[in-house]
Amino acid sequence: MKERATAKSIEVVRLHQRQAPARELDEVALEEPLEVQVEGRSIAVLMRTPGHDRELAAGFAFTESIIRSAEDIFEIVTCPTTEQPGNSVNIILRDPGRFDATKLSRNLISSSSCGICGKSSIEAAMQLFPPVTAAPSIDAHILLRLPAKLAAAQETFQRTGGLHACALFDRHGELLLLREDVGRHNALDKLIGHQLLAKQVPLGNCVLLLSGRVSFEMTQKALAAGIAIIAAISAPTSLAVEFARANNQTLVGFLRGETMNVYAGRVG
Amino acid sequence: MKERATAKSIEVVRLHQRQAPARELDEVALEEPLEVQVEGRSIAVLMRTPGHDRELAAGFAFTESIIRSAEDIFEIVTCPTTEQPGNSVNIILRDPGRFDATKLSRNLISSSSCGICGKSSIEAAMQLFPPVTAAPSIDAHILLRLPAKLAAAQETFQRTGGLHACALFDRHGELLLLREDVGRHNALDKLIGHQLLAKQVPLGNCVLLLSGRVSFEMTQKALAAGIAIIAAISAPTSLAVEFARANNQTLVGFLRGETMNVYAGRVG
Repeated sequence: MKERATAKSIEVVRLHQRQAPARELDEVALEEPLEVQVEGRSIAVLMRTPGHDRELAAGFAFTESIIRSAEDIFEIVTCPTTEQPGNSVNIILRDPGRFDATKLSRNLISSSSCGICGKSSIEAAMQLFPPVTAAPSIDAHILLRLPAKLAAAQETFQRTGGLHACALFDRHGELLLLREDVGRHNALDKLIGHQLLAKQVPLGNCVLLLSGRVSFEMTQKALAAGIAIIAAISAPTSLAVEFARANNQTLVGFLRGETMNVYAGRVG
Repeated sequence: MKERATAKSIEVVRLHQRQAPARELDEVALEEPLEVQVEGRSIAVLMRTPGHDRELAAGFAFTESIIRSAEDIFEIVTCPTTEQPGNSVNIILRDPGRFDATKLSRNLISSSSCGICGKSSIEAAMQLFPPVTAAPSIDAHILLRLPAKLAAAQETFQRTGGLHACALFDRHGELLLLREDVGRHNALDKLIGHQLLAKQVPLGNCVLLLSGRVSFEMTQKALAAGIAIIAAISAPTSLAVEFARANNQTLVGFLRGETMNVYAGRVG
């Protein structure tokens, strides 16, 4: 299937303090709504960069506990609508009888914001997925080489400066998969969705690298896929650190140049 | 009222390729759930940095069309819960009879994700608020000075590297208000909520400066408050540009050093 464009050229006026204004073409990251349906029922609309929509829908449904495994999915259908061709996908379940629309209404609300809404407390939200038993050891020298590999592979960002990236590496530092999106949670759901559909989940032996910051939502989605090692170029939030510590995840932040901060777990 | 902390110190291990590991204290941005209620009914849970919670709730309700003006609000009450003291606020309306909970269920879903869900099309979502009649003129030299003023005022970011900032300036480049949050949409809702409660909305004569990227959601929230000039340090998305152009907003991106890109409207 042909990949959809992730950026487009638009005309801008470039102003420079000491030069005449210039009309130029600038590449901006595409942002379009994707409606995710389960059994024909709309469960969320995600503002995302087009492309890998089936993987995004699968990953979203999985990390938000709407499905439990790839086996729950019978088929994912891209359904063109009148106004937004290709901006709607429908997840057909193998066992639609187990799909509780009432429960989903609740779920929907939670999923589209933060994974908390509709739960009575933050403690309850933290117990959605079992902790990883123990994060595998990871060598600092391998982690330090990952940002350069991400930058080399991050094609659209180079052009637009406007996309978040998630990359999956094996423990030897080999890049397995990269996904980019205007929303960081979408990039991660696309990545997890791909691995889910390829029957590669759980991802206990992988390292997840994030191009930006780490919020609670990102650590929770990673845990859904059994990811035990998370590294990020930028800062984690307080709740991301607490969540990683509570669930035996290794969490590294400010992975830059020759240094990193280890917020949870151990780096060898 | 005493301001709540926006960051906290945690112990991290700092690794350097050519030095021994060191235990250090690192400041991370606080992230905690805030439950927003209207008339005692939970309408959303926002993952936010504590502080300015009443303003956040007011701004969120306003930019998501749940209320139409400050006059709709009778009172905003902070309600401590057993487990999360101070992480719940309740908006009491002046005229509860006009509050349609059925409509809100729909609204809720939309608001917590992207402002699109539950609407039949992107076109419908774009027509939530009237366009600004005409953006006032703004001088390039004034815009170029804003990022340095933002950086000087952005206290928590300096310490944590983990917060988004929104700042409101008058057309002479004087800083009026700054808000920071782990979520960029929260920072903007806090800023708009403050101005709403101070009866300063619409903000047609102000310049909004964003520390990061500009998504559709940010331009839409700005329009809700009548903001006609948006400038950002980083890139806009395709939909943000289309939205700004359709609604007569001036949109500037990559405002850095001596240059900027004008994506919509005009800069003098």
